[in-house]
Amino acid sequence: MTITSNEETRTDRLVKWAAELKYSDIPDDVIQRTKDFFLDTLGCAIAGRSHPAVSAMVRFAAQMGPSDGKSELIDGSQNVRTSPAFASLINAAASHVVEQDDLHMRSIMHPATVIFPAALAVSQDIGATGEEFLTACVVGYEVGCRVGEYLGKSHYEKFHTTATGGVIGVAAAVAHLLKLDAIQTSSAVGTAGTQAAGLWQFLMDATHSKQVHTAKACFDGIFAAYSARDGLLGPRDILEGPRAMGAALVPGELHPEAIDQNLGKDFAVINSSFKWHASCRHTHPSVDALLNLMSKNQVTFDDIDSILVPTYQAAINVLSLSGNGDTVHQSKFSMGFVLAIAAKKGHAMITDFTEADLTDASLRDFQSRVTMEYNAEIDSKFPEEWQGTVIVTCKSGKVFKESTRFAKGDPELPLTRSEIEAKTHALAKYGGITDTAKVDSIIKRAWNLENEVDLRGFVF
Amino acid sequence: MTITSNEETRTDRLVKWAAELKYSDIPDDVIQRTKDFFLDTLGCAIAGRSHPAVSAMVRFAAQMGPSDGKSELIDGSQNVRTSPAFASLINAAASHVVEQDDLHMRSIMHPATVIFPAALAVSQDIGATGEEFLTACVVGYEVGCRVGEYLGKSHYEKFHTTATGGVIGVAAAVAHLLKLDAIQTSSAVGTAGTQAAGLWQFLMDATHSKQVHTAKACFDGIFAAYSARDGLLGPRDILEGPRAMGAALVPGELHPEAIDQNLGKDFAVINSSFKWHASCRHTHPSVDALLNLMSKNQVTFDDIDSILVPTYQAAINVLSLSGNGDTVHQSKFSMGFVLAIAAKKGHAMITDFTEADLTDASLRDFQSRVTMEYNAEIDSKFPEEWQGTVIVTCKSGKVFKESTRFAKGDPELPLTRSEIEAKTHALAKYGGITDTAKVDSIIKRAWNLENEVDLRGFVF
Repeated sequence: MTITSNEETRTDRLVKWAAELKYSDIPDDVIQRTKDFFLDTLGCAIAGRSHPAVSAMVRFAAQMGPSDGKSELIDGSQNVRTSPAFASLINAAASHVVEQDDLHMRSIMHPATVIFPAALAVSQDIGATGEEFLTACVVGYEVGCRVGEYLGKSHYEKFHTTATGGVIGVAAAVAHLLKLDAIQTSSAVGTAGTQAAGLWQFLMDATHSKQVHTAKACFDGIFAAYSARDGLLGPRDILEGPRAMGAALVPGELHPEAIDQNLGKDFAVINSSFKWHASCRHTHPSVDALLNLMSKNQVTFDDIDSILVPTYQAAINVLSLSGNGDTVHQSKFSMGFVLAIAAKKGHAMITDFTEADLTDASLRDFQSRVTMEYNAEIDSKFPEEWQGTVIVTCKSGKVFKESTRFAKGDPELPLTRSEIEAKTHALAKYGGITDTAKVDSIIKRAWNLENEVDLRGFVF
Repeated sequence: MTITSNEETRTDRLVKWAAELKYSDIPDDVIQRTKDFFLDTLGCAIAGRSHPAVSAMVRFAAQMGPSDGKSELIDGSQNVRTSPAFASLINAAASHVVEQDDLHMRSIMHPATVIFPAALAVSQDIGATGEEFLTACVVGYEVGCRVGEYLGKSHYEKFHTTATGGVIGVAAAVAHLLKLDAIQTSSAVGTAGTQAAGLWQFLMDATHSKQVHTAKACFDGIFAAYSARDGLLGPRDILEGPRAMGAALVPGELHPEAIDQNLGKDFAVINSSFKWHASCRHTHPSVDALLNLMSKNQVTFDDIDSILVPTYQAAINVLSLSGNGDTVHQSKFSMGFVLAIAAKKGHAMITDFTEADLTDASLRDFQSRVTMEYNAEIDSKFPEEWQGTVIVTCKSGKVFKESTRFAKGDPELPLTRSEIEAKTHALAKYGGITDTAKVDSIIKRAWNLENEVDLRGFVF
């Protein structure tokens, strides 16, 4: 007899649901939104393909992986096919570079950048269909985001939940593709959980761990699921057990109900947001509020004397780690710099953050006049709501205030298909893709994904 | 400007020492002991080669890795050569199955099972010499164990320090083999640290994470070092930074002085213990005390009515997780069962734990009469000393008490070379190796390791 009881745990229920979900169980709006996020992720991957972290992983795959395989890199210029573990490692790193991938708010994680690269690479490896791929992605979103929500915001203070919830979501998605039963899926999830890692320390010196986290969530989750199929046993109660993730990785409040409530009714895909701006997601509500305020009140960049941004604690924590933003990537984590870009350019798209801007005195001066301030009321609603408020004092002495409950791209204000297509073209252009017909053909395939029988060729 | 200061941190000093260590800097007793532990690890790997976790990883490597490579599996029956990441994955899993690998007490970790597989596989990949291999292993032991000691015993309550300290040690050892400079080594160590994971939850249901932890410490540490060479930047202050390992993974007391005090003077290799008994290391001091007591007082298995074992908290924590011990592996984590085996058979060697013993009524009855009890004085000395005390009440009514400060195999009582050779032969025999001349030839090579110019062929 082991100490683990035979009573069904919340994790058991989540795992069973994940193993048994069928395509026909999934509402059509969930399928449609999953396709939206899939296309969005392909664009992100191609935009991020030249980052040094991605190059290092391409080299790692060449040294440690096979010289051929069935899984493709979204960056076709590499002309590489490899095993799914390495293909997803690289694609996941690439898709998390430009800070344009999605967000599931309640869990504070970015599911797309881990779930799609893993599910795509494995689908190519085993010859899964579009329906099988989409079902696995819905499973991956659901399991990953529920784990992230269970771990909560005290976990997020030190840990990159996209990695720690993500690896579990990947394991569940891949287990579904491999047609593992509930017992095997439980092992996959357990083995994923005991590998869960990913610290925010890299924000302090602008190093490359953010891409390591998404890359390794894919690799490690694939390891967990393939190994579970081949007999490796993982701990069953990896979320709520006495030496499990909740106990070890969460100093504050846990949310156990998130693990299994409303399974099959409330879908993480539907609760995820698109990122419209190219900056850290914690800046988006404030950018929207500022742009609304400037438009409503005909305030210009030069009119603004200072901005006070009352916000929630997690935003202050994350946005305080990158200093003034010495690099383009870091600059997207500075509230002041992002608001400066938005105020000056009228948007904060991927092409709006440049090396030249880093030394633009007017932007740096504006940045120095932006202050974040903890607001208890806004914080009490986080992460269910990511509210944005800006209080703008003009050089004229006038003061304006504007708040947003939802950001553009949120579930309440999702991007339209034509906006997603425009964003994909912009990301591809940023990534150096000049063949727009190729981009159009990939867009067309994505919209028809449930009817695809071969998922190869999503390569720019 | 980033927020990270330019002042040298403790981690900087450790990394610099690691990057710059030369073979000629290492005292001869450290070299000799490193060779002892290397041979010991080879024996452990061959003894553990048939475990299902190892088989699953062999299969994973076949599916995800290359079909050839320069790095070997210690288990020659697999007839596999692969890339160093996969070879070390498998060898590290195999060497941590039979609970006979070494222990560094102050850090509560098993350095050999992660450092040697990684350093061996990489040495084979790059053609390193015996001297280069030994130097890298000394670096790996030192860095890994210092990190484990820094994290301390509150970390160990939830985390398997062999994994979390281990991945850093592996990164440092491999960085040394790859001749990375201090800056690159800092990146390797940082990327390793943001992957640090490994939870004790698996003890609850006897699943396979213990092998996952050592295997992945190797894979992830190799990833960190090779990627650092290829331009991937890792966070610099991964131990003491505000979002780093200490802050995120340690609820209690940290030991920052362990990171950099007495570098080059106090060697982790010399402070490591051999395991003589085949059970969890937390049972060893009590086994020694019991065997001494029985021998001194001519007490037999049948004479004993009950045993009280005053001990430190970490022993109670770990040994309380496996229930009565339903499997051979779990049975090595039951204080009562291990003492029963030792009392009945006079030793607790690898061949003393069998399937048949699990249903032996006399052992199970004896087991039920053993009780652990928290002892504040013993606990206050842990983990600097792992004391063992047993209070035996005989059926005659006589009561005996015996304590040990050091276990057989401890730095104060190390195994002799002939004992290590005997242990290696026993492990090989347990692993099904019948060619004892082959074992002798490997022993001979190990004792001459510093003069080897090609580290291939350590294959049973």
